[in-house]
Amino acid sequence: MPNIREIAKRAGVGIATVSRYINNTGYVSEEVKLKIQKEIDESGYTPNALARAIFTKNSKTLGLMIPNITNPFFNQMATVIEEHANRFGYTLFLCNTEDNEEKEKEYLEVLKSHRVAGIIASRSMCKDEYLNIQIPVISFENHISSSILTISSDNYKGGKMAFNHLYERGCRNILHIKGPKTFDATEMRYQGFIDGAKEKNIEVHVIGFESDFQVKMLEENLNNIINIEKYDGIFVFNDIAAATVMKYLKEKGIRIPDDIQIIGFDNSFICELVHPSLTTIEQPIKDLGALAVEFLIDLINGEDIVIKNYLVETKLIQRESTFLSSEVMSQSLVD
Amino acid sequence: MPNIREIAKRAGVGIATVSRYINNTGYVSEEVKLKIQKEIDESGYTPNALARAIFTKNSKTLGLMIPNITNPFFNQMATVIEEHANRFGYTLFLCNTEDNEEKEKEYLEVLKSHRVAGIIASRSMCKDEYLNIQIPVISFENHISSSILTISSDNYKGGKMAFNHLYERGCRNILHIKGPKTFDATEMRYQGFIDGAKEKNIEVHVIGFESDFQVKMLEENLNNIINIEKYDGIFVFNDIAAATVMKYLKEKGIRIPDDIQIIGFDNSFICELVHPSLTTIEQPIKDLGALAVEFLIDLINGEDIVIKNYLVETKLIQRESTFLSSEVMSQSLVD
Repeated sequence: MPNIREIAKRAGVGIATVSRYINNTGYVSEEVKLKIQKEIDESGYTPNALARAIFTKNSKTLGLMIPNITNPFFNQMATVIEEHANRFGYTLFLCNTEDNEEKEKEYLEVLKSHRVAGIIASRSMCKDEYLNIQIPVISFENHISSSILTISSDNYKGGKMAFNHLYERGCRNILHIKGPKTFDATEMRYQGFIDGAKEKNIEVHVIGFESDFQVKMLEENLNNIINIEKYDGIFVFNDIAAATVMKYLKEKGIRIPDDIQIIGFDNSFICELVHPSLTTIEQPIKDLGALAVEFLIDLINGEDIVIKNYLVETKLIQRESTFLSSEVMSQSLVD
Repeated sequence: MPNIREIAKRAGVGIATVSRYINNTGYVSEEVKLKIQKEIDESGYTPNALARAIFTKNSKTLGLMIPNITNPFFNQMATVIEEHANRFGYTLFLCNTEDNEEKEKEYLEVLKSHRVAGIIASRSMCKDEYLNIQIPVISFENHISSSILTISSDNYKGGKMAFNHLYERGCRNILHIKGPKTFDATEMRYQGFIDGAKEKNIEVHVIGFESDFQVKMLEENLNNIINIEKYDGIFVFNDIAAATVMKYLKEKGIRIPDDIQIIGFDNSFICELVHPSLTTIEQPIKDLGALAVEFLIDLINGEDIVIKNYLVETKLIQRESTFLSSEVMSQSLVD
């Protein structure tokens, strides 16, 4: 019986598309749906772990290393992974590593001693520890080793998309607030942003942060930026940090988007909660979560996964914190 | 060797105060510090599990049932519980129950089969399941049974405090947006609010929600409130729901606090992130988390806990979403 990758190959579409179709987690065109269903019907494919779960006792456990449960992106991601694991008959233990190497090591020992069936390691800080364990592992964001599949959004393209959006919306004096060096994902966003600026021959400024969002820490750092008013566009490494920057700007009497336009990254629920609502680069949380679970279950079932890096496309979601096209036009007329 | 409750009794202070002092998690006056330290010195008390952890292998595991990891109050609470458990040599498995009885039952089976040392059950939806298990259990918020200690904030007093604050700030046409009936905590807030209004002979309106915060669901419900503009004060059952209500009001062009004043509950990080910042009733997350862990560890160590309900004081935290006193005065002069 073929697996999800073979179905994808036969239908001439990506694995994520087959996953979206099977799990009903996002848009698939009618034409592609028909193609996929045809391959499924002809091959007799059934999602393997789901089929198993029907016949076996529902007591399997997975471990999820999550770097920061207060970050809305990661707690939404954990919720998706959990729902998806449940559908396959697995329960999920969440381990909150707080990007701390020692904590992650300790959790890994505990997961091993509890004999979990598999582990999803998000933004791992202790890569070597995963190399010789006898438990199937999938990595999210931070690359662990050439023998472990890493799933992530296409953060490089996302970073470039963020630059291009601010550029198209008229910004010429742009600041990037960059995530910690130890996060592969935010490093890639930074690279994409810088390369986007180079292509347009625009000089940009970058300041870095040393940990995930912490409101107080971020505000202290913002106070050290001399004349933040001089920028007309800011790309912040994630939504929750962007929301904190917005709050800071508003308190200084700076208008968004009139004085400074701002764009985040993730498309977490925070974007709709803040005012003005936050333009962002969407990470497809549902796809990412579903894929991580499905690949892990394939591994648990003894399948060999040849592919070692799996990138999922990001998407611009425009909201009020950047000008709409018509507004840019009328603003240009005024200038 | 005495335990934390005896130290508290001897020093003539509350258990929470001793906990704050030992763990350095909040304010304790110099005078009280001296009293507590004196009792500790005279009695030879050492926090028991901490002392044990020094001599035993650091591999003990606790389970935490958490109703909704995307709710900032609960993910901050989980972070505190985890840090505190770590200090006592325990790691923590987070189980995201989503207020779903079936999921909670399933997690309970998994925690039992993994032989965790103890369980903190937050806002339990399956009380009977905990009655005959052989694992120490502490309950947070929802009362489980007379044999299991329930820790919670004094939600009744907090609800009354919320009413009184809006009243003192000049509101006379007040709406309460109430949490689901299955949450003991939000029921108590509602009771306190109603009783506060009765004491002042003020008629209030109440509308109820059937689940924890979900931005979309909340907005749909808000659309069904006829003439929300007619209210001058709103008390919302928690901060994240209050932030959603604020967003809704701003989109309708209603000014906060000028047209409607608003108060939440929890004092989660959301309060500082929204604009204007949100007045709220603080639940002392650090105290609640520390107490839950300490009581659970006492139980694990075979101690008998006589007390069956432990209420922690709440506190008003005023921010921009309600008028400052001086503003109320000048407003009254204008009226």
